[in-house]
Amino acid sequence: MTNIELIEKALYGYIFSNDTLEKNLINSMEYSLKAGGKRIRPQLVLEFARLCGCEDKVALPFACAIEMIHTYSLIHDDLPCMDDDDMRRGKPSNHIVFGEDVALLAGDALQSLAFDVMTREDTVNIAGAQVASKCVNILAAYCGALGMVGGQVIDLEHENTQTPIEVITEMHRKKTGALIKAACEIGCVCGRADNEKIFAARKYGEAIGLAFQVVDDILDVTATKEQLGKPIGSDLENNKSTYVSLLGIERCREIVAEQTQIAVDSLSVFANDATALKDIALKLKNREK
Amino acid sequence: MTNIELIEKALYGYIFSNDTLEKNLINSMEYSLKAGGKRIRPQLVLEFARLCGCEDKVALPFACAIEMIHTYSLIHDDLPCMDDDDMRRGKPSNHIVFGEDVALLAGDALQSLAFDVMTREDTVNIAGAQVASKCVNILAAYCGALGMVGGQVIDLEHENTQTPIEVITEMHRKKTGALIKAACEIGCVCGRADNEKIFAARKYGEAIGLAFQVVDDILDVTATKEQLGKPIGSDLENNKSTYVSLLGIERCREIVAEQTQIAVDSLSVFANDATALKDIALKLKNREK
Repeated sequence: MTNIELIEKALYGYIFSNDTLEKNLINSMEYSLKAGGKRIRPQLVLEFARLCGCEDKVALPFACAIEMIHTYSLIHDDLPCMDDDDMRRGKPSNHIVFGEDVALLAGDALQSLAFDVMTREDTVNIAGAQVASKCVNILAAYCGALGMVGGQVIDLEHENTQTPIEVITEMHRKKTGALIKAACEIGCVCGRADNEKIFAARKYGEAIGLAFQVVDDILDVTATKEQLGKPIGSDLENNKSTYVSLLGIERCREIVAEQTQIAVDSLSVFANDATALKDIALKLKNREK
Repeated sequence: MTNIELIEKALYGYIFSNDTLEKNLINSMEYSLKAGGKRIRPQLVLEFARLCGCEDKVALPFACAIEMIHTYSLIHDDLPCMDDDDMRRGKPSNHIVFGEDVALLAGDALQSLAFDVMTREDTVNIAGAQVASKCVNILAAYCGALGMVGGQVIDLEHENTQTPIEVITEMHRKKTGALIKAACEIGCVCGRADNEKIFAARKYGEAIGLAFQVVDDILDVTATKEQLGKPIGSDLENNKSTYVSLLGIERCREIVAEQTQIAVDSLSVFANDATALKDIALKLKNREK
């Protein structure tokens, strides 16, 4: 089984039977969980866990939890009162299919489900309560007001305005970076890694998180609509400051290369071979969608 | 200090300094956390914990967490795509003050904050990782798709329609009941109670949860706008089936009395004196707002 197959098998296993009064809600959660995506965050959990000598069965619930948080954030992000996007990954957005009310609640329930699966008896029996509660704390802190959600607020308050690069960086660091960093750190915690390794994982996460976002900004200018599965040029159209509009494409490509190198270098503290994580960093750098 | 003072002191202590780029978000979270309310759920946590011989300092973070979940659910409930309520507790709703986008995100961040505070180092050092992860699991499960959020979906899918009493009961059991039950159970888990006590606490929670909602339905017909701090007669206006519309006020008053008695009786398994919890049940029965 590939990593993605392993993750999706575990992820879909958490979807409830839908023969209930809430079936519409559960279908809505399932729709977005199954909408694909690169499954980057859960792969980071798995790979860092493996690097720290941890079995997949320990790390998988935490890998799934982080993908649930990511999925909830996309559903809420697409809502009319937020980015008002009708399409996501080449398919109609959740609220287009299920209505705004159900989409809002599906996002809410996916957040709860993330914390649920991290602390189920099965999970805690395998991972231990210390590891489970530590992972809950990392994810909760990084996805909250001073992490992912905070980044979204910074983003929406600087829409349609010229924004200094420092604010853009802080916004990216939180909006996209926080959850990627959480994934790296959680993988290490699953493997009961020491602080030096956790520090290195954070550094890796921060670097690929920034690179990821700068690549997004570049693709918004250079990719086709078919490649992205969503409208292109939207940043430009919204007069939104981005890395590209502020620094130009060439400097942006340099930043992506620099950050990717920082990420790869940070892996040197791990005794084991970190090829998989080097590959993820390089693949994110070179992606075309 | 009264229970409410104790709870609010702890609760407000979790609000971040707001000298940040996210200050609008944090003000929005603070606005709703400080909007008052009866603080029923955190009081239930504290009182059940005390009944099981647990110190307040162990139970308080969990009491605060449940109030954060309750607060997030109210913010999202009031949004235009949900109940579209402009007023809450006699004040403008969160989205009226901060806008829909920030209100949505404040709700999201309050949910994260709940799971954050339950698993912080301070909390885990005092309560133990087993208790912390168990409380996370109870709260996550009861507030999610098969609990509170599920109840909200059942509610909105039966708006403006005639609905059988069984569906109304299931909706209440989840929408309001689940979180009240979670509070009771979490208090017992903080006090490392045995299964007999946890079972009794659940029974108490279920009974006062149903009584609470039936009282709400009664007050929607009998109270004044000033008493409730929100429009009255809204169920009737929306042609919504309620306990009152289906069973009549007299039968509803009987149900409230019966459920209150079940709650009081369930407390008999606790060796200690459960006066405070009896009082809460009676106060909820007799409330006028």
